Amino acid sequence: MTAPEPCFDVAHLGHVEVLTNKPEESLDFFVNVYGLTESGREGDSVYLRGFDDYEFHTLKLTASDNTGVGHIAYRCSSPQALERRVKAIEALGAGIGWTDGDLGHGPSYRFKDPDDHVFEIYYETNRYVAPPEEKPALKNIAQRYHGRGVCVRRLDHVNLLAADVGAIRDFLPKALGSRVTEQIVLDNGTVGACWFTVNNKGYDIAYSGDHTGSHGRFHHVTYAVDQREDILRAADIFLENGIYIETGPHKHAIQGTFFLYVYEPAGNRVEVANAGARLVMAPDWETVTWTEAERKKGQAWGLQTIKSFHTHGTPPVGE
Amino acid sequence: MTAPEPCFDVAHLGHVEVLTNKPEESLDFFVNVYGLTESGREGDSVYLRGFDDYEFHTLKLTASDNTGVGHIAYRCSSPQALERRVKAIEALGAGIGWTDGDLGHGPSYRFKDPDDHVFEIYYETNRYVAPPEEKPALKNIAQRYHGRGVCVRRLDHVNLLAADVGAIRDFLPKALGSRVTEQIVLDNGTVGACWFTVNNKGYDIAYSGDHTGSHGRFHHVTYAVDQREDILRAADIFLENGIYIETGPHKHAIQGTFFLYVYEPAGNRVEVANAGARLVMAPDWETVTWTEAERKKGQAWGLQTIKSFHTHGTPPVGE
Amino acid sequence: MTAPEPCFDVAHLGHVEVLTNKPEESLDFFVNVYGLTESGREGDSVYLRGFDDYEFHTLKLTASDNTGVGHIAYRCSSPQALERRVKAIEALGAGIGWTDGDLGHGPSYRFKDPDDHVFEIYYETNRYVAPPEEKPALKNIAQRYHGRGVCVRRLDHVNLLAADVGAIRDFLPKALGSRVTEQIVLDNGTVGACWFTVNNKGYDIAYSGDHTGSHGRFHHVTYAVDQREDILRAADIFLENGIYIETGPHKHAIQGTFFLYVYEPAGNRVEVANAGARLVMAPDWETVTWTEAERKKGQAWGLQTIKSFHTHGTPPVGE
Amino acid sequence: MTAPEPCFDVAHLGHVEVLTNKPEESLDFFVNVYGLTESGREGDSVYLRGFDDYEFHTLKLTASDNTGVGHIAYRCSSPQALERRVKAIEALGAGIGWTDGDLGHGPSYRFKDPDDHVFEIYYETNRYVAPPEEKPALKNIAQRYHGRGVCVRRLDHVNLLAADVGAIRDFLPKALGSRVTEQIVLDNGTVGACWFTVNNKGYDIAYSGDHTGSHGRFHHVTYAVDQREDILRAADIFLENGIYIETGPHKHAIQGTFFLYVYEPAGNRVEVANAGARLVMAPDWETVTWTEAERKKGQAWGLQTIKSFHTHGTPPVGE
Repeated sequence: MTAPEPCFDVAHLGHVEVLTNKPEESLDFFVNVYGLTESGREGDSVYLRGFDDYEFHTLKLTASDNTGVGHIAYRCSSPQALERRVKAIEALGAGIGWTDGDLGHGPSYRFKDPDDHVFEIYYETNRYVAPPEEKPALKNIAQRYHGRGVCVRRLDHVNLLAADVGAIRDFLPKALGSRVTEQIVLDNGTVGACWFTVNNKGYDIAYSGDHTGSHGRFHHVTYAVDQREDILRAADIFLENGIYIETGPHKHAIQGTFFLYVYEPAGNRVEVANAGARLVMAPDWETVTWTEAERKKGQAWGLQTIKSFHTHGTPPVGE
Repeated sequence: MTAPEPCFDVAHLGHVEVLTNKPEESLDFFVNVYGLTESGREGDSVYLRGFDDYEFHTLKLTASDNTGVGHIAYRCSSPQALERRVKAIEALGAGIGWTDGDLGHGPSYRFKDPDDHVFEIYYETNRYVAPPEEKPALKNIAQRYHGRGVCVRRLDHVNLLAADVGAIRDFLPKALGSRVTEQIVLDNGTVGACWFTVNNKGYDIAYSGDHTGSHGRFHHVTYAVDQREDILRAADIFLENGIYIETGPHKHAIQGTFFLYVYEPAGNRVEVANAGARLVMAPDWETVTWTEAERKKGQAWGLQTIKSFHTHGTPPVGE
Repeated sequence: MTAPEPCFDVAHLGHVEVLTNKPEESLDFFVNVYGLTESGREGDSVYLRGFDDYEFHTLKLTASDNTGVGHIAYRCSSPQALERRVKAIEALGAGIGWTDGDLGHGPSYRFKDPDDHVFEIYYETNRYVAPPEEKPALKNIAQRYHGRGVCVRRLDHVNLLAADVGAIRDFLPKALGSRVTEQIVLDNGTVGACWFTVNNKGYDIAYSGDHTGSHGRFHHVTYAVDQREDILRAADIFLENGIYIETGPHKHAIQGTFFLYVYEPAGNRVEVANAGARLVMAPDWETVTWTEAERKKGQAWGLQTIKSFHTHGTPPVGE
Repeated sequence: MTAPEPCFDVAHLGHVEVLTNKPEESLDFFVNVYGLTESGREGDSVYLRGFDDYEFHTLKLTASDNTGVGHIAYRCSSPQALERRVKAIEALGAGIGWTDGDLGHGPSYRFKDPDDHVFEIYYETNRYVAPPEEKPALKNIAQRYHGRGVCVRRLDHVNLLAADVGAIRDFLPKALGSRVTEQIVLDNGTVGACWFTVNNKGYDIAYSGDHTGSHGRFHHVTYAVDQREDILRAADIFLENGIYIETGPHKHAIQGTFFLYVYEPAGNRVEVANAGARLVMAPDWETVTWTEAERKKGQAWGLQTIKSFHTHGTPPVGE
């Protein structure tokens, strides 16, 4: 019997909606320190993007009475692929329904993962068109390299908390056609954390176990920079701007990414990362499974994972 | 009418066969200076790979009475995808036929591009299994970071010469499902050069015009390293080992890649490159077209393209 | 007979006065693109410094009817050392006389080199005191790492043109106690270029031959950044800001410095450089002499020196 | 009254003798992993140096029945300066007497610091002369950039433990003319740690408090590399070679150095470091004093100092 073909219906992570109860401070952080650029506003939301994100926005920052994640969006490969995914998700009983779209994209179909995070998938998108003062010197990038703050290049991935990561591991491949590239399996057999991708990146979404009994919480959002040196430089920028650095820079054992974690002023965790030249090329990549014993060795070069990494999520729940 | 869906039948560039008439010197270069690792030998060929290439080999170095490229191979996404591609190529009248496979992979289907370069596509592959002394400390990479020479990470792309690049631009999307990400269109309307990809990389193959009236010639093969600093370090390693540096390090205007070109001892051009965090995420990426006037500005930071870049290919034809 | 002891009377290059006939554009470049910080103004001059320069200023930008260099200043090791140098310079017949000082320092003694460039030496200095908004997070640097533009760290060296570089090679060791670390001696026996230092840096001043018959001209001023990556990043910043990039980034064969040369808007050449960990530690360093044949190999990795590097100086003289 | 002039009698740290009770494993580490080059052997010692150290050796690795430091050597600026230092040290009552020299240098004068570490000062030195296979492509460096292992450039500094760091702070400026660039003063008024320099480097020796009641112990020796990226790369090399990584890479708050600490196979701590473009230029640099409260903030980006950093020294004393 022939194995099923890999699914390419979903092209990439599109955007993440982050909630903030300190909208002015958060916006100042994302624009002037992190280096995103505003492309529009509507209602309580400001639409932001990295300098080489090709879409209208990749971060929707929404004023709210709390922190956390509003929704996570993926762009499909074609209108037909979008239809196929909607059917698959409806078959899973996870569907919410269609939206009329947003400033940055056309109609989207919303659904929930087993931990109640809201997702949407869409195909029609509004490409970012740089105004004259943001036109790049080289026309193959979306916007000029403005050099403001950390000046992150593009949205890389999102990380969520879930009470039952194993349930997510079953769900996402069926819903989005994601592949599981790496995972932590605890000694008791449960999935401690799991990394997924829909394309050649090592991961575009990851989940870790939420030990608080809560649902739908947010761990962090990550943008990519071009070089590890950009992350070392980012550390100085965060330091000089009074941004809380949680841990890093260091190299993840899992995925090999060079990382730096901070909290934006409202408390949401934000990462800057670089994956080097690493890509998952194999269409039949075999999931790499890490044990508890292996995780106890710490990160790639021995840094022990900081305690708050396992306890701090947004919204906070009595950490 | 609905547009056709993008094709994902071909997963990635698999390997390149490079011919050398100085096999010992070339092998010493690729292993001790460039930093590839030998995984096997058969007949006149030595099989080599970068430390994180997951397949048995990505470079097949074959002793010959001349230099140049033997064949270029792509791995398909599934057995079914391989069958679809074979049919498409047969329909184009470009097919050569099936092989029994090689040390590194199972049966492959061979064909020629319009300039007579030999290609093959395959699905079954022999994954590299690291012997004990090459086991990595972190099990999500294929082989230990050995640190020998430039220590390139993985095969990145190949660049070929062709008398009629426009014909290639028509052919590859039909044969492999490649997308044209960037191109140079000369003032006379012909295609000066063209960059193609089958996945999220900005390019896995490129063609430039061959002004000598020859066919089937080779321009260069490129492996990726993790950081631009690895390329600056590579320049010192090449310098100290007496390897001819043709041009670089500098940043390409097209694709934005940081590059360094050298000639291996037999005269084949070899590149070391880093693309930073740049990926082509959009499933409907719009081809970026550069004019002659734009190309006259030189590379990204103004370096004029060295004359030999347009004249030197292998095998040589009276440069 | 015992050799004379090395001279440590002069501690370091203090500041350079650069003349501009486009004062607003030049100031915008130095502050917003190059990343210096203004610490004061007086008359036609703006006083500027890199974020870790400990003195009040290291660049005095003076509006003028032309471009070029106003004067070059060195700080002495002690009041006694200053007196010794004044006597030595007077004995050479090169003295101009004492000044009352400037915004940035106390009384200085002025003199001319054999090519009529004006120098001054001083001891008393006004240390930079960061205002609250520029206070660094770590108190062992002079000012916060502000991250604006290229954000250069400190003044590194100055490069001048002279009709007779050999005369300078005789003069500076006697006047300042400088040591000649490297030089180019042409086939005809004349000195083509010469690099000098008063401390552990490989050079703080260099001279090249001026083939125009002019005197007192300026070649460039250079600030140091911490990493080569800062220079690659600088290239993108210059590119996006429309600053003319003359040559680089590349590595100098002489001194091994990683370099990038641009013209500020008024035409003065400005460099960004990184010397890595290289220092001249030996108190009895033997001058390295390069021949014409060696220079024809180009820079460290083969980049040929651009023609304008030998013809463009300020003020311009019919290039 | 005029202040005394700064002392320039001592030019730089010359070499460090490290003791090992695992001589073969230690030598393999220093040569093949750390990347030093052997320049000679005599008795129980192997003489080693970084690729751009200009002297015959900078590390003397001596087989012993224990670990720790044999002696620390500084090179003087001139024969006259050496005589002046000998007189000053004799006046302090710290002198041991003259040696006949060693493979790497001429006669040296030995003395002890107040914690019983053995020092020597010398002027006559044997410059390293590269054999043909080690000749550099560019003649202004001492040896070719061989690219083996971490390939450190030059000796940077040594760090010692002392029961009474305050006594050292008084002694070294008198003995060597060192300046105190930074220090930690504890809440009880005692000196917790102290950094000294004799030249433009931020420090060439540092002392930390030894809380074990022992004397003459060794904390670590450090070589410099050119870029922070070299240190990130070193971390992968140490990881793949099974070398224990104690802490880092990270940036020191004090001195701003980017660091990585490992234990060589016999247990001596070894550092790889990069200071960026930071130099101490001011001849009248004012000591930067850090409080306990400031130190509790951890390193520059918040990394807490690992416990073993305060307890592990060599030889071990019941850690």
